Amino acid sequence: MAIKILVTGGTFDKEYDEIAGRLYFKHTHVPEILQLGRSHLPIEVDTLMMIDSLEMTAANREQIVQHCRNCSEPRIVITHGTDTMEITAKELGRANLDKTIVLTGAMVPYKFGSSDGLFNLGSALAFVQSLPKGVYVAMNGRYFDWDNVKKNKASGVFEEIG
Amino acid sequence: MAIKILVTGGTFDKEYDEIAGRLYFKHTHVPEILQLGRSHLPIEVDTLMMIDSLEMTAANREQIVQHCRNCSEPRIVITHGTDTMEITAKELGRANLDKTIVLTGAMVPYKFGSSDGLFNLGSALAFVQSLPKGVYVAMNGRYFDWDNVKKNKASGVFEEIG
Amino acid sequence: MAIKILVTGGTFDKEYDEIAGRLYFKHTHVPEILQLGRSHLPIEVDTLMMIDSLEMTAANREQIVQHCRNCSEPRIVITHGTDTMEITAKELGRANLDKTIVLTGAMVPYKFGSSDGLFNLGSALAFVQSLPKGVYVAMNGRYFDWDNVKKNKASGVFEEIG
Amino acid sequence: MAIKILVTGGTFDKEYDEIAGRLYFKHTHVPEILQLGRSHLPIEVDTLMMIDSLEMTAANREQIVQHCRNCSEPRIVITHGTDTMEITAKELGRANLDKTIVLTGAMVPYKFGSSDGLFNLGSALAFVQSLPKGVYVAMNGRYFDWDNVKKNKASGVFEEIG
Repeated sequence: MAIKILVTGGTFDKEYDEIAGRLYFKHTHVPEILQLGRSHLPIEVDTLMMIDSLEMTAANREQIVQHCRNCSEPRIVITHGTDTMEITAKELGRANLDKTIVLTGAMVPYKFGSSDGLFNLGSALAFVQSLPKGVYVAMNGRYFDWDNVKKNKASGVFEEIG
Repeated sequence: MAIKILVTGGTFDKEYDEIAGRLYFKHTHVPEILQLGRSHLPIEVDTLMMIDSLEMTAANREQIVQHCRNCSEPRIVITHGTDTMEITAKELGRANLDKTIVLTGAMVPYKFGSSDGLFNLGSALAFVQSLPKGVYVAMNGRYFDWDNVKKNKASGVFEEIG
Repeated sequence: MAIKILVTGGTFDKEYDEIAGRLYFKHTHVPEILQLGRSHLPIEVDTLMMIDSLEMTAANREQIVQHCRNCSEPRIVITHGTDTMEITAKELGRANLDKTIVLTGAMVPYKFGSSDGLFNLGSALAFVQSLPKGVYVAMNGRYFDWDNVKKNKASGVFEEIG
Repeated sequence: MAIKILVTGGTFDKEYDEIAGRLYFKHTHVPEILQLGRSHLPIEVDTLMMIDSLEMTAANREQIVQHCRNCSEPRIVITHGTDTMEITAKELGRANLDKTIVLTGAMVPYKFGSSDGLFNLGSALAFVQSLPKGVYVAMNGRYFDWDNVKKNKASGVFEEIG
């Protein structure tokens, strides 16, 4: 039961540039987290892009949808910035692919001692193995259907729309 | 969809006693992990015991089964030492309760910067929400049926029996 | 042998605002570091300001000098952003106070798992107890006289002017 | 001003063996700490032994004294278990070497996220550069003369004898 992890960036993978004193992207920490989590799942990690999700364009989203459509794995986890995760989820939902796709992310960069990145990746990988085909967002220990989820900008917590 | 977490101890909750220079149990770190993981699940945490699973007796296991039978929640995660997790899983499986029960643990104490505790608890909480009724072990990113799991003592990795 | 720690901000005390996704100052972590370092020194911590040292004005520096002149302690450690630490050191050196003053900081925020903040604060507190009266910068395990130190902007390492 | 660090083991360097579930020694973490602390001191690290200081013999202590006598560096930091640090300090003090020697250690293993190891090593390296010739213990942010120090076994804090 092969699983693909598509990396797109987001807070999850941000680091601190100690010379410039600002946040930036270098490379993904997903393989390191899988190792520290003692994961023994058959996972292939592909880095599609490394961007803040506030800067994600329609072309970027189309690239994500195409990659999900074309890859051989029937189960896909996407690491994504939380700010526009619901938009990418909608694009994927509307594409109506015959796969289980789970988007997840983090509120704090993994490199800053983020517990939620580790917790969320563990949770997303479990959901992608056990949920029926469809597109989901996995945050805050919960899963949401792609057409019924939004991030509460004030609290940072994901919730149902209605 | 209320979830119960039953704490029984195990490596997960061990701490370092800096005066005595040895490992010991003080209190569970499950609520702290849930908070750091930004969990918004409706969870109640009960500490049943705080022991090394090598010291777990038949009476202890009976207590765990009774607690699972009697609690109102239909979904239960049990934090447990890894050394005898498969034995407790068997007791629970044979009890044939009408619930989804997931046992999990950690190879390194949470307080020592364990990434696998965070990863495993995230994974166990996702599995307990999405798997059908039954008893499972969630370790190494995977889930195992209660009657087809053992810990490889040499590698520390969980695998199927046969 | 009372010691004063004057907090002025800098990378040392920066935190990650998980709602806004940017670095900011909340409160100083110096007391927490002293506790984790098991310090038993007679220390009083005063927060003078919480700013990035690139934004430190001449008025801010005059405030620091005045505070050093007027406080009763003969030994003072100042936590400070690294970018302009050498400028504040010069102001203090020229003030010619009859005290031992050590400026220190960090390349990575303490909250992001900075080892250099812990290492540098331990080092600065040792230097302030053992060096003769004067003004010093303590970074990279070394100490520098106030009139012979600069930060190498490319490498982030402190060195003698030469 | 070359500095030698002599590693003897102690809590500082203990690790958690996740297969056996117990504490053990593998290799020293001193070079890693120096790197994370961004140390730019001219340091050579020698591992003399890797033992719990409760198991340190008279022969071990003689080996430490000989090494301090024979090495070329005039400044030496010794990482040491805290339980018998005062005994080794006395042996070194009585040897009356013409060097500055500072013993330090940690209450919590570095690998368990010990802040006191980082803090203490930073402090010991500063003291060894700035104190006159003699033998000292550096713990809890303070330094103690070799003939006036003991560990309070109940609190874990170092204090003067008298």
